Amino acid sequence: MHTVEQMLKTYPKDLGGIDTAKLAATIQSLVECAQACTACADACLSEDNVADLTKCVRSNLDCADACSATANILSRHTGYDANITRTFLQACATACKACGDECSRHADMHEHCRACAEACRSCELACRDLIANLG
Amino acid sequence: MHTVEQMLKTYPKDLGGIDTAKLAATIQSLVECAQACTACADACLSEDNVADLTKCVRSNLDCADACSATANILSRHTGYDANITRTFLQACATACKACGDECSRHADMHEHCRACAEACRSCELACRDLIANLG
Amino acid sequence: MHTVEQMLKTYPKDLGGIDTAKLAATIQSLVECAQACTACADACLSEDNVADLTKCVRSNLDCADACSATANILSRHTGYDANITRTFLQACATACKACGDECSRHADMHEHCRACAEACRSCELACRDLIANLG
Amino acid sequence: MHTVEQMLKTYPKDLGGIDTAKLAATIQSLVECAQACTACADACLSEDNVADLTKCVRSNLDCADACSATANILSRHTGYDANITRTFLQACATACKACGDECSRHADMHEHCRACAEACRSCELACRDLIANLG
Repeated sequence: MHTVEQMLKTYPKDLGGIDTAKLAATIQSLVECAQACTACADACLSEDNVADLTKCVRSNLDCADACSATANILSRHTGYDANITRTFLQACATACKACGDECSRHADMHEHCRACAEACRSCELACRDLIANLG
Repeated sequence: MHTVEQMLKTYPKDLGGIDTAKLAATIQSLVECAQACTACADACLSEDNVADLTKCVRSNLDCADACSATANILSRHTGYDANITRTFLQACATACKACGDECSRHADMHEHCRACAEACRSCELACRDLIANLG
Repeated sequence: MHTVEQMLKTYPKDLGGIDTAKLAATIQSLVECAQACTACADACLSEDNVADLTKCVRSNLDCADACSATANILSRHTGYDANITRTFLQACATACKACGDECSRHADMHEHCRACAEACRSCELACRDLIANLG
Repeated sequence: MHTVEQMLKTYPKDLGGIDTAKLAATIQSLVECAQACTACADACLSEDNVADLTKCVRSNLDCADACSATANILSRHTGYDANITRTFLQACATACKACGDECSRHADMHEHCRACAEACRSCELACRDLIANLG
């Protein structure tokens, strides 16, 4: 998603001291993870053993909401507020960890859970890495 | 919004020890605040002094995203995870406080900022009250 | 949700010829329906016969997305574009009808589906009524 | 965003006759466009001539909501309803066209509007192409 970087590069004012490569990577991870979680929730609904996957669907839906909101917040730079950025990155990392853990439990049986768990892990790491970079 | 309570009452399993009246009130505050912030961002865009309100628009948009995601998370009870609930209530209270503070600065001049600041304050209090109730 | 009306009344510019009472009622129906659908999807996940409710969960999630997007669009008046408003009201009414129909099929067995079907019907009617009012 | 394709390939049931390459490309365009519009709205807020860009911000926000909702709907296949898919693709194409037109007006002056206009055009085309493919 080259577009994320393009939008950062064309922002008209100073982006502060933030590492824009890390910021772009995190936004990209967030939108990928949100989509993967939305798709995984639906794939779980189509499994014959859906009754065993209800907690997974719920984790997916929470994680999708968390990632979408955080991607939006990270895409805004006007009147930047480090508190909001940090608290949402932390909340989002929590949701990604929970969903990654839950999907991992079904990864051997369901390929979509394996793929989604990977997206959640990458996204969790990206969020934690960006938190560290915020100083 | 009587519907919020109805959906809680008709949930088929145990909701745990949570105070359902407080939970309903918080969900209601969150959806009201999300809508107020979306509308306030747009009202700011229509003000002649929009150039003085850009930080307000940004706070409004963040707060709307925060409240929508948190309302969704609080509307789910299957496979409940107290960590996610708590961390999102905290992140959301942070966004509501920031937006309430920013809107308050323009409340004398713009009625929509006054109304939105009130919605943000109520929502921040509801979130903090529910955090305390989570134990 | 008195807040919806307050935000409409405090909008600083002319709202055009639109019936603001109908507009407020529609926005309110949309946010109520979005929340009811989010909650109903989760309640279905907690039912013992969740395997019979997977289409219902999917309809709920689509309808929640449709109503949230449409509520946001209707909450904006700056640079109003009747085409976008009309096309989203129509798409949203389609999603509300589909979800209302699906929830109605389970209304005898599941109270949350009955309550959600009502929210979907009200919202569908509000959307269609507002479309007619747009001229 | 390889993840979109992976989630489609690992969906456990039949996806119907749909062209999955086109579907993946459309979902990818939608999430890219939603993020670009969110970022462009914020970049406009930081421009010195923000007062000339208020309609652009509004179009951006509508288009972001439209694309996010449509990306979610296209990411679900359980209990597929062609009516909802078609009506949302049409509504989304309308929002993308409006936003692409508006951003194009400022493309010479603002690089973020140029980049966002491109994302909107690609997304509009992808939506229309997929509508034609639905039959």
